[in-house]
Amino acid sequence: MTTGPIEGSSKRYEPVPGAEHLRYPVRRIHLSNDEHFDVYDTSGPYTDTEAKIDVTSGLAPLRDDWDRPAPVAGAATQLAWAREGITTDEMAYVAAREGFDPEFVRAEVAAGRAVIPANHRHPESEPMIIGRAFAVKINANIGNSAVSSSIDEEVEKMVWAARWGADTLMDLSTGRHIHKTREWILRNSPIPVGTVPIYQALEKVNGDPAKLTWEIFRDTVIEQAEQGVDYMTVHAGVLLRYVPLTARRVTGIVSRGGSIMAAWCLAHHQESFLYTRFEELCEIFRRYDITFSLGDGLRPGSIADANDDAQFAELRTLGELTAVAKSHGVQVMIEGPGHVPMHKIEENVRLEEELCEGAPFYTLGPLATDIAPAYDHITSAIGAAMIARAGTAMLCYVTPKEHLGLPNRDDVKVGVITYKIAAHAADLAKEHPRAQERDDALSRARFEFRWNDQFALSLDPDTAREYHDETLPAEPAKTAHFCSMCGPKFCSMRISADVREYAARNGLDSVEAIEAGMAEKSAEFAATGNKVYLPVRAV
Amino acid sequence: MTTGPIEGSSKRYEPVPGAEHLRYPVRRIHLSNDEHFDVYDTSGPYTDTEAKIDVTSGLAPLRDDWDRPAPVAGAATQLAWAREGITTDEMAYVAAREGFDPEFVRAEVAAGRAVIPANHRHPESEPMIIGRAFAVKINANIGNSAVSSSIDEEVEKMVWAARWGADTLMDLSTGRHIHKTREWILRNSPIPVGTVPIYQALEKVNGDPAKLTWEIFRDTVIEQAEQGVDYMTVHAGVLLRYVPLTARRVTGIVSRGGSIMAAWCLAHHQESFLYTRFEELCEIFRRYDITFSLGDGLRPGSIADANDDAQFAELRTLGELTAVAKSHGVQVMIEGPGHVPMHKIEENVRLEEELCEGAPFYTLGPLATDIAPAYDHITSAIGAAMIARAGTAMLCYVTPKEHLGLPNRDDVKVGVITYKIAAHAADLAKEHPRAQERDDALSRARFEFRWNDQFALSLDPDTAREYHDETLPAEPAKTAHFCSMCGPKFCSMRISADVREYAARNGLDSVEAIEAGMAEKSAEFAATGNKVYLPVRAV
Repeated sequence: MTTGPIEGSSKRYEPVPGAEHLRYPVRRIHLSNDEHFDVYDTSGPYTDTEAKIDVTSGLAPLRDDWDRPAPVAGAATQLAWAREGITTDEMAYVAAREGFDPEFVRAEVAAGRAVIPANHRHPESEPMIIGRAFAVKINANIGNSAVSSSIDEEVEKMVWAARWGADTLMDLSTGRHIHKTREWILRNSPIPVGTVPIYQALEKVNGDPAKLTWEIFRDTVIEQAEQGVDYMTVHAGVLLRYVPLTARRVTGIVSRGGSIMAAWCLAHHQESFLYTRFEELCEIFRRYDITFSLGDGLRPGSIADANDDAQFAELRTLGELTAVAKSHGVQVMIEGPGHVPMHKIEENVRLEEELCEGAPFYTLGPLATDIAPAYDHITSAIGAAMIARAGTAMLCYVTPKEHLGLPNRDDVKVGVITYKIAAHAADLAKEHPRAQERDDALSRARFEFRWNDQFALSLDPDTAREYHDETLPAEPAKTAHFCSMCGPKFCSMRISADVREYAARNGLDSVEAIEAGMAEKSAEFAATGNKVYLPVRAV
Repeated sequence: MTTGPIEGSSKRYEPVPGAEHLRYPVRRIHLSNDEHFDVYDTSGPYTDTEAKIDVTSGLAPLRDDWDRPAPVAGAATQLAWAREGITTDEMAYVAAREGFDPEFVRAEVAAGRAVIPANHRHPESEPMIIGRAFAVKINANIGNSAVSSSIDEEVEKMVWAARWGADTLMDLSTGRHIHKTREWILRNSPIPVGTVPIYQALEKVNGDPAKLTWEIFRDTVIEQAEQGVDYMTVHAGVLLRYVPLTARRVTGIVSRGGSIMAAWCLAHHQESFLYTRFEELCEIFRRYDITFSLGDGLRPGSIADANDDAQFAELRTLGELTAVAKSHGVQVMIEGPGHVPMHKIEENVRLEEELCEGAPFYTLGPLATDIAPAYDHITSAIGAAMIARAGTAMLCYVTPKEHLGLPNRDDVKVGVITYKIAAHAADLAKEHPRAQERDDALSRARFEFRWNDQFALSLDPDTAREYHDETLPAEPAKTAHFCSMCGPKFCSMRISADVREYAARNGLDSVEAIEAGMAEKSAEFAATGNKVYLPVRAV
């Protein structure tokens, strides 16, 4: 199990304003100029040097002693409480984490524009919020399959993903030990955990979709609800009449859940139990405060199939189901594509917000091209950054192994860091109040040649340092006023620092000032400039 | 030296329509279903099994026997000839490569909306075109510095970059042996080569910008022109009065050329010789048909500095210089940022096209965030795809080592593949006539489990196969109707293939058809469905 702080930083817990009995986690990055920079922290107790980690007993049940208001008309959910005007501990906690006012959080949750996935049975989780008004979140998928991987590996992948910034985790296990794997993950996960219950239900009928029933599915949902799963993907929008719309596609149905339900619908020539029994499902979800992640079973699996009739027909049905779920006080988010060329991305967000009452959109990428297997973390980061900028609230990561194999530990890290990049780029474009502070802090460190600070402020300090070491290993190089791109005497950063000092010293920081004052100053510059470096070698 | 075809493909030369004495290169990808797919090929003779490669003697001078029209008013350039209504061999060649009409190519070049960088003294190069109406191109930077790397390494990096898809190459060497390194690269390069002559000029004055003169710069340009450099970056837009505008920036001046000229302007309190002698420079360029790459010496080096006064003041000056260069018959492209958040990207293209008469825009990324050193190929691919979609004609790649060190061979490949992704994603979004064909071919192969075809059609067949081998090494797995994500019996692709067969067989490919015909067919499906897989296990 990976523990200990990320290089250059330490874990802190800050009191939640207005709810001082709560403390939220922060990662404090320590800078060489005696300053520090605090960042949002998803890593849980694993990066806390004080914390005792024992996987067999799991994490401390953080939320067990938090206030839990009485159910509202049977719904013990953040949505129901928010609508009642109640600001829960979870709302205060996420408000503090993100730097928003608790009342704003309550209002966004009440409107269904944001969700706080927090099953009462998963007290180990540190609440977080998903909604377009907040920082864009990322989800990491893990899960073993018939082909490979063990429980220990999966738990370590969870800790590892959270360490590097995963906001939520989906356990997509399909092999043996599904229940046990999930139990280990939940008891040790500081971040919300999602599942696709139909996978386990299918195991129970020996993998034959036609044999699935409402009862088997319902019992599976309750089993997982009792374990503490925070959100569940339900492909209730796959209707019988939509299935043939996929027949002429280049890649048909690529969603596992979607293909199960399509097979069921065709075999029975009926609408699925997910659709016909949806309200009964809502009754279960609202007892635990499980959040719906309404699955896009007919999402496009290729550029050719993007934004087609099958995809948008299902989206319209998801919109109807969103209204039903909310009428039961159940939180909802909507899953999205998949594979979409850049010029068709915005329409997905526009339609989702229009049809689903602004429920948080949760997309898989999308990949902006199909031609780069082994680089689909990159093809999808392009689409992910754009769709997040357009309003998507959470991005499901894609690893370099997408379409080719199962991600290992390194793939998980690359996927998470890549998606932190896409999410942060979108936060900048959305002008999220805090987003640019980190860019500015890192760029100042870069400009001032504070190499160690630049590493510490980066999303992956270990790799940044490793790459710098490849060319300039010596520790002095970490404070040297140059880098390997230009060498010791060639440095544009250095010369522009000279320009700055010079201009500042002489008040030459405007067109007017320089045209007035440059003449007599220019000689002086040559002198001072040459003092800085002899000879001044700047390129 | 890396030679031999890329996996699953072979080199071909096709006759140029209307100019059958010319043949252009194509990479033919061979598919398992006896079909093939031809792609644009930048790799030169190195992937031709017939070709004899001898680095010491260089490539054959392909263009030596091509028709070269007489100069027009002193200008022996593609621009001057295009304006005269002459369709050159180079224009016919690039038209064939891209699948456009030669007359369309001529018109775009005549209008200055596209350039064909082809110095008469670089006959080894295979002509290519850069312009917003054509496929988006990518440039790879190489070059040793005071700190590291050898001539052999640089030549191999060039061959390697071209192999994976680099359309042009910039030699940014700053260390010793600049002249010799460039000679080796040019004589062996099938793609246009660009330089930044001020780097070598600075060597000649022992690195002191203040000692630079027009004469030293001019002689350096002529030396490089004689060697065959196809395009040169000239930072003629850095004016004295713009320099102080960078004083309050977070990262000042990050362009090496920009900082040299800024230092010169401040030291002499004059406009630079690049600006005052610009027309004399045009006279030299037009004799060789060297293309200007007007450098953005004041480009932003951080998110905070994007789209500021210094950047756009210089861009206006580049617009004036564009008009001057074109009046001398010299081809021009304009360099762009740098670091720009997503919401400020489009303004860069809009202004460049407005101020520079639609001259091809050539940008470095831009990086969409500053916080991910070691992943700046990804942060910049997001910005690159977006700025290319908006109209940028060529993208300068960024490698994972950006800001940290010098790229090695692996970094060069990752940078090139990442930028092929960004460029292709933009071609799709611009609905370039041929772009989606490759996505569709690969997606069909994926859907039909033609694994080897999927690898061969991908941008990096070697890595795609390697990743698949990690989980399913055996050769049979390359034809198996499943993948490691779902395992042998769990497969959404498989079940949707069943759906397709079923729907097609029964004409159930529309909402109407299925609502009419489903009832009696559903039973049949269960049967046929089960014939396909017993039990049907689809997830």
